[in-house]
Amino acid sequence: MTRHLQLTEQGRLKHFLTIEGLDRELLTEILDTAESFVGMSEHQVKKVPLLRGKTIVNLFFENSTRTRTTFELAATRLSADVLNMDIARSATSKGESLLDTIRNLEAMQVDMFVVRHALSGAAHFIAQQVAPHISVINAGDGQHAHPTQAMLDMFTIRQHKKQFEGLKVAIVGDILHSRVARSQILALNALGVAEVRVIAPKTLLPAQVKTMGVTPIHDMDEGLADVDVVIMLRLQKERMNSAFLPSESEFFRCFGLTEAKLQRAKPDAIVMHPGPINRGVEIASSVADGPQSVILQQVSNGVAVRMAIMSMTMRSGGTA
Amino acid sequence: MTRHLQLTEQGRLKHFLTIEGLDRELLTEILDTAESFVGMSEHQVKKVPLLRGKTIVNLFFENSTRTRTTFELAATRLSADVLNMDIARSATSKGESLLDTIRNLEAMQVDMFVVRHALSGAAHFIAQQVAPHISVINAGDGQHAHPTQAMLDMFTIRQHKKQFEGLKVAIVGDILHSRVARSQILALNALGVAEVRVIAPKTLLPAQVKTMGVTPIHDMDEGLADVDVVIMLRLQKERMNSAFLPSESEFFRCFGLTEAKLQRAKPDAIVMHPGPINRGVEIASSVADGPQSVILQQVSNGVAVRMAIMSMTMRSGGTA
Amino acid sequence: MTRHLQLTEQGRLKHFLTIEGLDRELLTEILDTAESFVGMSEHQVKKVPLLRGKTIVNLFFENSTRTRTTFELAATRLSADVLNMDIARSATSKGESLLDTIRNLEAMQVDMFVVRHALSGAAHFIAQQVAPHISVINAGDGQHAHPTQAMLDMFTIRQHKKQFEGLKVAIVGDILHSRVARSQILALNALGVAEVRVIAPKTLLPAQVKTMGVTPIHDMDEGLADVDVVIMLRLQKERMNSAFLPSESEFFRCFGLTEAKLQRAKPDAIVMHPGPINRGVEIASSVADGPQSVILQQVSNGVAVRMAIMSMTMRSGGTA
Repeated sequence: MTRHLQLTEQGRLKHFLTIEGLDRELLTEILDTAESFVGMSEHQVKKVPLLRGKTIVNLFFENSTRTRTTFELAATRLSADVLNMDIARSATSKGESLLDTIRNLEAMQVDMFVVRHALSGAAHFIAQQVAPHISVINAGDGQHAHPTQAMLDMFTIRQHKKQFEGLKVAIVGDILHSRVARSQILALNALGVAEVRVIAPKTLLPAQVKTMGVTPIHDMDEGLADVDVVIMLRLQKERMNSAFLPSESEFFRCFGLTEAKLQRAKPDAIVMHPGPINRGVEIASSVADGPQSVILQQVSNGVAVRMAIMSMTMRSGGTA
Repeated sequence: MTRHLQLTEQGRLKHFLTIEGLDRELLTEILDTAESFVGMSEHQVKKVPLLRGKTIVNLFFENSTRTRTTFELAATRLSADVLNMDIARSATSKGESLLDTIRNLEAMQVDMFVVRHALSGAAHFIAQQVAPHISVINAGDGQHAHPTQAMLDMFTIRQHKKQFEGLKVAIVGDILHSRVARSQILALNALGVAEVRVIAPKTLLPAQVKTMGVTPIHDMDEGLADVDVVIMLRLQKERMNSAFLPSESEFFRCFGLTEAKLQRAKPDAIVMHPGPINRGVEIASSVADGPQSVILQQVSNGVAVRMAIMSMTMRSGGTA
Repeated sequence: MTRHLQLTEQGRLKHFLTIEGLDRELLTEILDTAESFVGMSEHQVKKVPLLRGKTIVNLFFENSTRTRTTFELAATRLSADVLNMDIARSATSKGESLLDTIRNLEAMQVDMFVVRHALSGAAHFIAQQVAPHISVINAGDGQHAHPTQAMLDMFTIRQHKKQFEGLKVAIVGDILHSRVARSQILALNALGVAEVRVIAPKTLLPAQVKTMGVTPIHDMDEGLADVDVVIMLRLQKERMNSAFLPSESEFFRCFGLTEAKLQRAKPDAIVMHPGPINRGVEIASSVADGPQSVILQQVSNGVAVRMAIMSMTMRSGGTA
């Protein structure tokens, strides 16, 4: 059903809510489209008129400067007009429902909603409700999905490894609460990597982990052995309590990525992180700033990948 | 005097502060101009270059996401540059006076102020002070006026009823504290409707109601009988105390618009509300979302009407 | 060293961090470039495409609506895209370091940082760290420098006095804590005025005042005698305590600028103030609004001077 919600009858991307239900061909089309926007940053004028006259609403119910900023830049570089909605201060605080907020913005003839919300399913709900010409992009919903982050990660992996076949990828950290990990796992499997390992203490792995197409491992030395890609997750410090985790230093000792532990991976393994990083908590500074780190390339690619997804969804809107 | 302040010597719109003193011809010109912008929303590129290179300042001393957003969209679709001033955080909090704030923005060669302020008369005061090339638009001042809201309401009525002659219009709710109602009453009378009824408990009607050109009525069944248009006002919940009002449920029972009460109006009567609506307080959800509701069309029309008013005031500025 | 940091090998402006190390020729080039932008405000379309497709980040760690607004307007009138970073709400509050914030924005291919920070040296630090294509402009760092303010002041002086040779300039107020005064003193001396006097109580003068190329004076009558330019500083009310200052009224009596005291200056002396002004604290309203005041012209010139500095630093970036 999600598949139908995201795609037009012709199979083109209409909304971008989750990696679930998207096939390798479509994910590859996103990566290829993003490729064409990467070179643009070297041009004198970093803008294309693809979305000129379109209004894109950044509807952020949760704060996220970094994600909002890359979406704003992506929209601006496509020549769209951007409306940043500061929801905490808006009519929703006067008791207006989410649906009434959406209906009102829709009535102002906006063309796209970029939605971040603390509730899983918020972007899906909005996509089910909006008028046919509007596209919805999920910029993170609860612990469910963060699909544009996953796609920029895939883009960065392809940039360095050329193809997904045969790759061994380790995702390390709080898998249980991570919408990023959930979307990465779906994308990596759809794109055909050889193995996805999730490395975490048992308390930070979902109960149904075996059904996710991953190999759960509780030890860094074992998990990092021979991998091509190491993806570190951000440790949400607010989760740091006795129920889930012992202490920051204990976590770092067991699951933090150090130069020594990274030696277990392939010599040309790349190190990724969705940011913002907690130096000395989940990753050592020497690794984050080291030669194998591609963390800042992920940020750069984030703009291009979001431009690709925005322009693809709007294109399908035009022909719907 | 307000008339002179709002109009150039040639009788063209220079500022837009109140409906008072504007004649039927000028109000009709606004509606006709807005008409030309309504179709634009169906174009691929929803922009015209009418105000390119102009700087429009949203000077909101009171929060109002919806109104600010439609003004921002209207300005953007006229290709103007928009400066959103968050007054709570600005130099006024360093003790700078309103007039010094205005003088400084003026010195930055801005072209228009869109002003919302909790004090009645704030926009007039600013219009009296600004340099000749600057236009001022009142986006709501205290309990005095909200003229762009009234004009989008007139636009919506004309869209459905074609002409104002012979129409019976009921405005329901807290007339006493409503700048929206004040502006609507002036506009409806200037445009020549047959009758304007105001329906409210006695505590929510102004003392001088008889001089406003309206029929005061205290009962919904009587008031809604045979009307063409029902305008519900938003109930300001902060007013909900024993002095003015009994309780929310009591108010809804007496003055809330339900399907049953709406039966008293003409079968093709339209239902309006300036939003954001309080479902189940002043209006039942079944009516707000029902076939006679034009509430979301009001929002759409708000962008076009504000584009009309912005472009008309700036045009007169150019020739002054 | 700062000189090298600010200039390219060809001696063109790359960053704009401090007046220190910039020679008369370069300061004059800034003033001449600003001149060409001043006339633009009378055009119908107040925009030039010089920075089209460039992304300028307003990185304000300290609030300053006025300064941020003029930078935003300057960038917009050069056709650049502006990203306003509300640092209080951003990832830095999630514990990200300043350097990580900069590295991330850099990775998004932005072209310029306009930085205001409570710590002296913040803009220098950022300029030392950024990629070669990025320019950094200091919009005020601690008590160190506010060089764009100084340049708009120089522009305003030249506008009225035609040349700097032979001018006597008095700067009045809290010199000790003023980054504005520090930058003004450097600029006035570099441009060759005859004398810079600083007028303040001893508690508000820096210990090393003698080495700054100024004449310290503790009495208004003596200090204002025969000057061509009077620059009043804003009194930071939070400094108003027994250690530095007696009381507001006492300060005004001794160092506030009144019509009577202004009589001591040359008849055609101009009165300046960086704003926002404290009426009746450091300056009488009759003087601030009087015929010799050029305070609002300073604001107007601020946009043109910042356009000049922005376009000059970006031009050098293009050829670097």
